Amino acid sequence: MSSLDVSTANEQLQACIQECVDCHRACLETAAYCLEQGGRHAEPDHLRLLFDCAEICQTSANFMLRRSDLYPLICEVCAEICAECADGCDAFEGDARLERCAEACRACAERCQIMAEEEGVE
Amino acid sequence: MSSLDVSTANEQLQACIQECVDCHRACLETAAYCLEQGGRHAEPDHLRLLFDCAEICQTSANFMLRRSDLYPLICEVCAEICAECADGCDAFEGDARLERCAEACRACAERCQIMAEEEGVE
Amino acid sequence: MSSLDVSTANEQLQACIQECVDCHRACLETAAYCLEQGGRHAEPDHLRLLFDCAEICQTSANFMLRRSDLYPLICEVCAEICAECADGCDAFEGDARLERCAEACRACAERCQIMAEEEGVE
Amino acid sequence: MSSLDVSTANEQLQACIQECVDCHRACLETAAYCLEQGGRHAEPDHLRLLFDCAEICQTSANFMLRRSDLYPLICEVCAEICAECADGCDAFEGDARLERCAEACRACAERCQIMAEEEGVE
Repeated sequence: MSSLDVSTANEQLQACIQECVDCHRACLETAAYCLEQGGRHAEPDHLRLLFDCAEICQTSANFMLRRSDLYPLICEVCAEICAECADGCDAFEGDARLERCAEACRACAERCQIMAEEEGVE
Repeated sequence: MSSLDVSTANEQLQACIQECVDCHRACLETAAYCLEQGGRHAEPDHLRLLFDCAEICQTSANFMLRRSDLYPLICEVCAEICAECADGCDAFEGDARLERCAEACRACAERCQIMAEEEGVE
Repeated sequence: MSSLDVSTANEQLQACIQECVDCHRACLETAAYCLEQGGRHAEPDHLRLLFDCAEICQTSANFMLRRSDLYPLICEVCAEICAECADGCDAFEGDARLERCAEACRACAERCQIMAEEEGVE
Repeated sequence: MSSLDVSTANEQLQACIQECVDCHRACLETAAYCLEQGGRHAEPDHLRLLFDCAEICQTSANFMLRRSDLYPLICEVCAEICAECADGCDAFEGDARLERCAEACRACAERCQIMAEEEGVE
C-alpha cells in the first residue's frame, strides 16, 4: 500500500469506528426510552434487536480499535444487524427518537459494509 | 417445530453457550499468560487474535442468552475466528497451556458452526 | 505469600470467576424471560437491574481472568450490585426462575465480597 | 428536582458518557500501539491497566446509557481506575501518544468523580 492509501484507509477506519460508537449509543438510549414507553415500544423482539445492534457495534468498534485484521468479518455481520435494526425502528414512524435511531443504524450499516469489503489495514 | 425438536434445539443452544463461555475464559487466561511469558508468546498478532476470539465468544454467548434470533449470524463469524485462533495456538506446540487453548477454540468453532446452520430457536 | 497461600488464593479467584460467569448467565436468561412475561416482570427498573448485574459480573470476571490486580475494586461494586439484584428478584416469590436468579446473585455477592477484601494475587 | 436541575443533570450525564467513550477509545488505541512498540511499552502491568481502564469506561458508559440509577457506584470505581491509568501513562514522558492517553484518563476521572457524588438522575 502507498502511504497515501494507508492514510485514506486509516481515515475510513476512524470514520467507521465513530459510526459504530454513535450507533451503539443510539441503540442503548433508544432501548432505555422504549422500556419506559412500554406497549408496542417494549415488545421483546424490538428490544432484543436494539440490544443486539448495540452489542455488535461495540464489538465491531473494539476490533477496529485493537487494529485487528479480522475486522472485515465483524463489520460484515455488523452491517447486516444494523440494517435489520434500522428496518425495525422504521416501524415507529412519527416517533422522532426512533427515527433518529434508524438513521444512526443506517449510517453505521453503510460504513460497515464498506469496511467489510476491505482486506484489512496492514 | 415439535416439542421434541424444541427440546433438542434448546440443549444445543445451551451446549453452544457453554463452549463460548469456556473459550472466552481460555483465551483471556492464555492472553494473560502469554503477556507474562513475553517473546514469541507476546507477539502483537498472537495476542490480538486471543483478544478477538475472547470478545466474539462473549458476544456470541450474550446473543444466545438473550434468545436473539440473530445468533446464527454471530455464531458463523465466531466459528471462523475460533478456528483461526486455534491455528494460531497450534504454533506453540509443546506448551500445554496453548494446546489446551487450541482445544477450547476448536470445540467452540465446531459447536458454533452447527448453530450457524440453524434457523434460530423460535 | 507462601506457595500454599498462593494456591489457596488462586482457588478463591477461580471460584469467584465461576460465580460471576454463572450470575451473568442467570441474569441475562432471566431478563429474556421477564421481557417475554411482560407486566410486572418487565418493569424498566427490574430489567435494568438485571442488565446492570449481568454487565458488572462480566466485567468482574474479565478483570480476574486478565489477572489484573485491580479486581478487588470491581469485586466490591459487583458484590453491591448483585445484592441489590438478589433483593429485586426476591420480590417475585413463587416464580422459580426468579428465585434461582436471586440465589445466583446472592452466591456471587458473597464470593465477590471475599475478593473485595483481598489485596490482590501477586 | 426542578426542570432546570433535571436539564443540568442530564447535560452532566451526557458529558460523562462522552468522556468514558473517549477514554475507552484512547486506552484501546494506546494498548494496540504499546503492543507494537514492545519493550517497556508492552510490560504486562502497563497493558493490563490500559485494558482495565478501557473496560470499566465501557461499562460505565453503558450504565449511564441505560439510565441505570446505579451509575454513581460504577463512576466511582471508574474514576479510581482512570486516575491509576493516567499515572501509569505519565511514566512515558515524551511519548505524545501516551501523554494524550493520560489526558483522556484524567479528564474521565474528573467527570466520573463528579457523577459518583450524584445521587442518580431520576
